[in-house]
Amino acid sequence: MPKSVNLLEKLAAFDEVWVPKVVGELNGQHVKVVKFSGEYVWHSHAHEDELFLVIDGHIDIHFRDHVAALDPGEFCIVPHGLEHKPVAHDTASVLLFEPATTRNTGGVDHTYTIEPGDLERI
Amino acid sequence: MPKSVNLLEKLAAFDEVWVPKVVGELNGQHVKVVKFSGEYVWHSHAHEDELFLVIDGHIDIHFRDHVAALDPGEFCIVPHGLEHKPVAHDTASVLLFEPATTRNTGGVDHTYTIEPGDLERI
Repeated sequence: MPKSVNLLEKLAAFDEVWVPKVVGELNGQHVKVVKFSGEYVWHSHAHEDELFLVIDGHIDIHFRDHVAALDPGEFCIVPHGLEHKPVAHDTASVLLFEPATTRNTGGVDHTYTIEPGDLERI
Repeated sequence: MPKSVNLLEKLAAFDEVWVPKVVGELNGQHVKVVKFSGEYVWHSHAHEDELFLVIDGHIDIHFRDHVAALDPGEFCIVPHGLEHKPVAHDTASVLLFEPATTRNTGGVDHTYTIEPGDLERI
C-alpha cells in the first residue's frame, strides 16, 4: 500500500555521516538519504549517473575543473564516469537518486565503502 | 558541466497546472516539476513506477482503497499498474522521478495528456 514517507523523519533516525540509507526503490533506482560532514573521497561511477538534492545545509560537489555549490532545494546530476568529491563544511542532509547498483565510493576502495547489497533500509 | 539546479526557480518559471516540465535526466529517468490544482484523472502506468515529492503545498494521492496525504518534504512511490488520482485542493508544487517513457495520464487519453516526447525542458 503506497504511503507517505517523510524525509526529515527518516533523517532524524540516524546520526552517521557518509552512510546512505535506502528510503525508497522504483524502476531499479534507489532513493536514499545521507548526511554529509567534511570531505568525501574523489571517485566516479563507471555506469551510474547520480542525483544529489540538498534537504538541509550546504554542500559543494567538487569536480576537477569546477565546483557546484548546492543549498536546500537545489540538485546536481553527476554523469557516470565523471570524477567528483562531495564536501560539506558543516553537516548537511542530502537525498540521492541513483541506480540500485550504485557503489557509494564508485571504483575506489575506501573506509567509506559500503557494498550496495549491504545498505540499510530505514 | 554539472551545475546546481534550483527547484523554486524552475517552478517560478511557469504557471500552468498539470503540465510537467523536465528539469533533469539521468539513467533513463526524468526529474520533473509540476504544479497541481484541483483533481487529476484516474490512471495507471503499465510499466513505470512513479515518485511524487511535495515541494510546496499539500496533495492527496487517491488510490481505490486509501489516500496518501503528502505535505512538503514527503514523498510517495506509486508502483506500475496501480490506479491513482492526484488531488490538490489548493495549488501545490511537486517533483516527479519517473522513467523518461512515462506518459502523464498513463493508459488514459485525456485533455491533460502530453506525450513524453512533447514535454518541455526548462
